[in-house]
Amino acid sequence: MKIVLAYSGGLDTSVLMSWIKETYNAEMIGFCANIGQEDELKGLNQKAKKTGASKIYIDDLQEEFARDFIYPMLRAGAIYEGQYYLGTSIARPLIAKRMVEIARKEGAQAIAHGATGKGNDQVRFELTAAALAPELDIIAPWRDDRYRSQFPGRQAMIDYCAAKKIPVQASAKKPYSMDRNLLHISYEAGILEDPWYDSLDPKKNRDYFTTLSVLPEDAPDKPEFVELEFVKGDCVAVNGTKMTPLQVMKKLNKLGGKHGVGRVDMVENRFVGMKSRGVYETPGGSILTFAHRQIESLTMDREVMHLRDSLIPKYAELVYYGFWFAPERLALQALVEESQKNVSGTVRVKLYKGGIYVAGRKSKHSLYNPHIATMEEDPTKAYNQNDATGFIRLNGLRLRVNSTVNGAKNMAKLK
Amino acid sequence: MKIVLAYSGGLDTSVLMSWIKETYNAEMIGFCANIGQEDELKGLNQKAKKTGASKIYIDDLQEEFARDFIYPMLRAGAIYEGQYYLGTSIARPLIAKRMVEIARKEGAQAIAHGATGKGNDQVRFELTAAALAPELDIIAPWRDDRYRSQFPGRQAMIDYCAAKKIPVQASAKKPYSMDRNLLHISYEAGILEDPWYDSLDPKKNRDYFTTLSVLPEDAPDKPEFVELEFVKGDCVAVNGTKMTPLQVMKKLNKLGGKHGVGRVDMVENRFVGMKSRGVYETPGGSILTFAHRQIESLTMDREVMHLRDSLIPKYAELVYYGFWFAPERLALQALVEESQKNVSGTVRVKLYKGGIYVAGRKSKHSLYNPHIATMEEDPTKAYNQNDATGFIRLNGLRLRVNSTVNGAKNMAKLK
Amino acid sequence: MKIVLAYSGGLDTSVLMSWIKETYNAEMIGFCANIGQEDELKGLNQKAKKTGASKIYIDDLQEEFARDFIYPMLRAGAIYEGQYYLGTSIARPLIAKRMVEIARKEGAQAIAHGATGKGNDQVRFELTAAALAPELDIIAPWRDDRYRSQFPGRQAMIDYCAAKKIPVQASAKKPYSMDRNLLHISYEAGILEDPWYDSLDPKKNRDYFTTLSVLPEDAPDKPEFVELEFVKGDCVAVNGTKMTPLQVMKKLNKLGGKHGVGRVDMVENRFVGMKSRGVYETPGGSILTFAHRQIESLTMDREVMHLRDSLIPKYAELVYYGFWFAPERLALQALVEESQKNVSGTVRVKLYKGGIYVAGRKSKHSLYNPHIATMEEDPTKAYNQNDATGFIRLNGLRLRVNSTVNGAKNMAKLK
Amino acid sequence: MKIVLAYSGGLDTSVLMSWIKETYNAEMIGFCANIGQEDELKGLNQKAKKTGASKIYIDDLQEEFARDFIYPMLRAGAIYEGQYYLGTSIARPLIAKRMVEIARKEGAQAIAHGATGKGNDQVRFELTAAALAPELDIIAPWRDDRYRSQFPGRQAMIDYCAAKKIPVQASAKKPYSMDRNLLHISYEAGILEDPWYDSLDPKKNRDYFTTLSVLPEDAPDKPEFVELEFVKGDCVAVNGTKMTPLQVMKKLNKLGGKHGVGRVDMVENRFVGMKSRGVYETPGGSILTFAHRQIESLTMDREVMHLRDSLIPKYAELVYYGFWFAPERLALQALVEESQKNVSGTVRVKLYKGGIYVAGRKSKHSLYNPHIATMEEDPTKAYNQNDATGFIRLNGLRLRVNSTVNGAKNMAKLK
Repeated sequence: MKIVLAYSGGLDTSVLMSWIKETYNAEMIGFCANIGQEDELKGLNQKAKKTGASKIYIDDLQEEFARDFIYPMLRAGAIYEGQYYLGTSIARPLIAKRMVEIARKEGAQAIAHGATGKGNDQVRFELTAAALAPELDIIAPWRDDRYRSQFPGRQAMIDYCAAKKIPVQASAKKPYSMDRNLLHISYEAGILEDPWYDSLDPKKNRDYFTTLSVLPEDAPDKPEFVELEFVKGDCVAVNGTKMTPLQVMKKLNKLGGKHGVGRVDMVENRFVGMKSRGVYETPGGSILTFAHRQIESLTMDREVMHLRDSLIPKYAELVYYGFWFAPERLALQALVEESQKNVSGTVRVKLYKGGIYVAGRKSKHSLYNPHIATMEEDPTKAYNQNDATGFIRLNGLRLRVNSTVNGAKNMAKLK
Repeated sequence: MKIVLAYSGGLDTSVLMSWIKETYNAEMIGFCANIGQEDELKGLNQKAKKTGASKIYIDDLQEEFARDFIYPMLRAGAIYEGQYYLGTSIARPLIAKRMVEIARKEGAQAIAHGATGKGNDQVRFELTAAALAPELDIIAPWRDDRYRSQFPGRQAMIDYCAAKKIPVQASAKKPYSMDRNLLHISYEAGILEDPWYDSLDPKKNRDYFTTLSVLPEDAPDKPEFVELEFVKGDCVAVNGTKMTPLQVMKKLNKLGGKHGVGRVDMVENRFVGMKSRGVYETPGGSILTFAHRQIESLTMDREVMHLRDSLIPKYAELVYYGFWFAPERLALQALVEESQKNVSGTVRVKLYKGGIYVAGRKSKHSLYNPHIATMEEDPTKAYNQNDATGFIRLNGLRLRVNSTVNGAKNMAKLK
Repeated sequence: MKIVLAYSGGLDTSVLMSWIKETYNAEMIGFCANIGQEDELKGLNQKAKKTGASKIYIDDLQEEFARDFIYPMLRAGAIYEGQYYLGTSIARPLIAKRMVEIARKEGAQAIAHGATGKGNDQVRFELTAAALAPELDIIAPWRDDRYRSQFPGRQAMIDYCAAKKIPVQASAKKPYSMDRNLLHISYEAGILEDPWYDSLDPKKNRDYFTTLSVLPEDAPDKPEFVELEFVKGDCVAVNGTKMTPLQVMKKLNKLGGKHGVGRVDMVENRFVGMKSRGVYETPGGSILTFAHRQIESLTMDREVMHLRDSLIPKYAELVYYGFWFAPERLALQALVEESQKNVSGTVRVKLYKGGIYVAGRKSKHSLYNPHIATMEEDPTKAYNQNDATGFIRLNGLRLRVNSTVNGAKNMAKLK
Repeated sequence: MKIVLAYSGGLDTSVLMSWIKETYNAEMIGFCANIGQEDELKGLNQKAKKTGASKIYIDDLQEEFARDFIYPMLRAGAIYEGQYYLGTSIARPLIAKRMVEIARKEGAQAIAHGATGKGNDQVRFELTAAALAPELDIIAPWRDDRYRSQFPGRQAMIDYCAAKKIPVQASAKKPYSMDRNLLHISYEAGILEDPWYDSLDPKKNRDYFTTLSVLPEDAPDKPEFVELEFVKGDCVAVNGTKMTPLQVMKKLNKLGGKHGVGRVDMVENRFVGMKSRGVYETPGGSILTFAHRQIESLTMDREVMHLRDSLIPKYAELVYYGFWFAPERLALQALVEESQKNVSGTVRVKLYKGGIYVAGRKSKHSLYNPHIATMEEDPTKAYNQNDATGFIRLNGLRLRVNSTVNGAKNMAKLK
């Protein structure tokens, strides 16, 4: 049996590599994707082999991640439960897709991962596999009683590695867990399990939750302005320089991080049915989401926006739950693409002490016509105020009939 | 004929009072609501009579505004086009409702207002009247050719008042128009008609758009923490002190204003079909909206939240368009009320340099159970990780069947 | 240990009674609800005791079923996937609710059912228990490997009963399975597993799928008219006679069955992830659903109807999936109740050869005003045709701006 | 000035031709589209010229109507207010689009139509013109006081034609108005204004509302079976014969009409704010809508269907209101197209006495897998019943937490 394992070289996946190999008597193929987590990947090949892998794939997927996953999601304006920029959610389908490709190339029968049985990631991995390779088996040792009883805690893993001569570095355990990629870094568990705990308190957390961005208090005292150019809903240039999606992400992560923007601390609802608490830094993603809304406000038709807005919660739910490669996500994406065809122009944003503000927007596709909106004389005669009389009367007709028939008390308590 | 006119004592409504009286040969009844606009109301009675009114009603509607209009809307979490807190929109139905009550009491045949033919306010006034008093006529002189040609500009009004001996104060014209109430102040037109114009630029606008709040740059260098207590979706106490809705609004406007929070600059879509640009200060409202979402995150069921979130755009649209007293708003409100029955608890927010952050939330109705979410041992055994296997497999079943039948290419381009 | 088992006295639940008792070494309490399935309930008490029960509850829940389950669902106009009247779905939460009540009264620790691991019913039972009695265990032997291997087929059950001296009647197995209650009868599996099989073919199926209704071909040649009176969305009288919900259901099942209406043959999507094929007879329910829409068409506001219609798929999904006692269903129900407050009046329907037709509707709450709609002179002057000009112009404004800016080709290929 | 007028040669549009020409001192260009209304078009050219036209376009748009308007709408499954197949609504944008093309070709400044100021058609015409030719003026004499006062009734028109020597045939006035095209015929006004009037009563209406179809009572006593083949949501063959969309419509209108299917009698909500009553015959369209749902039930993913179903009311509203050439309709259409890519296969329907029944469906893209659904042994092991335990437990988790925290009474009244 051949198994492809998502492998990082850390303690957890090293134990998995060895345990799965032994338990399933399998040939193990490691896979490590560079999706911007900035881990040390040097020496990973050798480490994997020492841990029992017959082969390891180390793929730089950053550009694909930005172009085919982050950008389409940004075009949709997706935010989960009004707050979360979906940084972890959107990375999982990409990783699983690549594992499926490797499994097929290598003739593997299963893919394995080290996600726990309580989280969303297991679902995202496995739904992607279900959609792209229904024939593959899934191995998820954390949902296996044998594995959980063998490794009740971190020390059992360290002992296991020592016994098996698996090379692992003893890193100090942080009082929370985290996950990083090009779009964000997330923190959860440990001290964050108390929802009353203030993750922004500089006295306690300056060293903890500031990987991609400073705390607002530590941001520069002078605002900084950034100009973003959009074409069909995608940011294609920053401050006048054309960039690939990956370059845009890196540039804006740096700028946003410097000014402390994009920090989220929330209680969220997992797909598996529980609430959990997370802290996120999404500097570049939050700037793009904000700026995208601004350029839409200028170029997008009202009814398209209102319709799309009513579907964002569903779209975001699909991404969060792991239904990226699902026909209903593709259906919504088709609607999104159609909605973006004129969403082009320039947005100027101001970054200051944790805040993102709009400082201007312009577009050749602008549907905002000052001649029509103006209170001054309109030389183009595009709008005749008298028209509003009929507009209001017909919009009110059903209300008049209703209250004539059923009484105004039907609608409000009148004095 | 008897006509009730929305009257403020300013130049515009003074001219209206006189012109309508003459044009319709009518007895005029003035009406001025105190909804927190902080206008000078002293002497208004006398002024109205000198301008031709036979009577004037000056009503303090602030508590009703906060309790029966702002609070229900906040329970719904309404934000228009992802940005606007609906401060003007929600005031109009209250004013029109009171005019209807006065008209009925006085036996008037019509109500009149000075809203232009281009804006949303005319619609909001008149739809309210349609719903609550279908028998009343509406007089909207700005949609009357005679009025518009008689008063092509401000000077013609000043001259008219001089000729008619109408007492008006010559106030300097600001380079934009504004509207203030308990929930917000809005600015539009004039220099704001250029969407590239930066309303936040301290060099140009420190005196312009800072009525309720300072610019972020001018906010204190030290953050301030506020504790808000919610009961069934309503904020009932601030920093431990029980307050009425009106008191909450005033308190939070002050606190939020001091820290420069709740500023919005946007291009929005009017109901009458055009885009327009507005700047808003909503200090207290933005704090409440943010904090309400936090307490919901802890106490609201996931499916209720996702459903409700998909309906916010519609609810906000109804408020913005003027359909407050409409059966579809009442239907949505019924859903909202049901959703709020356990939304009770305390939220701690941090205000700093234009930003609102959460610094803790707690509730006796909390649905967040750290025992379930924890990565550590769960003594309550409330969650069995093995359950996730079946959960994922059945959630993935339709995806597996789909890709077995139609091919994985159906879903994604695989290498 | 004490266990409450849903028990009918048939082969399946008799085996379950005995097997669970033995396997769990438990005291068994049988429960059989009369929800209109017209089973033989005489002698059930004795039979249960012979099978091993210490006690049995036989409850007539028909009126509660009609009043608190069927009627609220009909007020919502729920239809699943455009076709299914949800007859089985709506019965499950009632049965499970009653089992929970009995379990609490008796101090039982678990409830057990005989639903398979492939269907929706298991979910509906268990989600109800989760919502109403989270402390109770669930026993579902069909999801237990031991049970499935012990009873691979019907004969093993018959042999088991013989060995255990359990009294069961050897009924001839039908080539499909069925489930009946006050609202409908369902058929599935067996010969119906081929979706190309014609369940309506009189030559093959006259004896098979005609429990509640005749085939259209066998219906009388003369139509029959029925007058239904609605109050707030509920049918309260048939042909002028006031009736309880249960009486209405029985009356209309009879009338509808006679004329062959309410037959559905469909492929549907189960919650557990698969498609299945079902045939349903819902004579009374289909008449009520149709007539309810007719009275709504006369009395319900347009916007309320359009909003509600967009939520029917969600509501129906919730009922179908088993989320009756879920907060999101209650939230939707609150909206539905608000929508029904003026849905009162009379509908005349015609039943003929499988078809339901409207032959008239009238109401004191009618919002249909022939004076307004008429092409003839309108003495009430309620509608001024000139108003339509402004109405259309403002509704078209955004379209004109869009095509001026982006070109008409943006919208359509013009010659 | 040059004006394009929608012209049929009947009394109404003949008067319009002459009156507009005179009133606007314009050159008139007539336009008559053949969209399947089966009017007499012979001699129309000559008649138009005698009435004052300088030119007339008579275009057969039937194939375009079926292919580019009816079919895309059928793919969306659009039904307005649960009942109406949108036969008139969908024809208007085509007619207006063609008028726009002619106006541009001829250099005309305006288009004119004879729709009344109370109906939906005026809106549909003019919104199409707004979207496709914002520069064109609209002339709608029925919204012109001069026209309405000159022609208070039919006799004034007849007199006018006599005086002007305009050739019109004096046809007997029917006690209702009607409108016919390839998709349907509609009837409204006159005797139908009483919603209690039974339009199906054979004694009164056999000659009135039976243009495209017989009354159910008059349909053959033997059912007829039809096989429809679908490719990507479109019917491409009937009973084994490949057909164009136009041929399909004609064939199914004939078959459906013979069996009396597709008759609708309803009270509907017009866009201009009033309710009205209409009777429709849509024989072919109702068969296609029904059969399309059947093939979808076999081939469409569950989540795509549920999402799409929630958007049908909006899509249908857009078509009904006249927003065919609107960006929000295009956005929804993009979603619909994506949803249809595997909606291919064959449906067998049975037509009998006014009813449409499914008698079988099959497809190579069928997502219905009897191996999975079966109650019998599944050799493919595609479904493990044990999986359902975890699936249900996690789906119920939030319900258990909710009732543990807030009490089961929160959800239901328990005894």
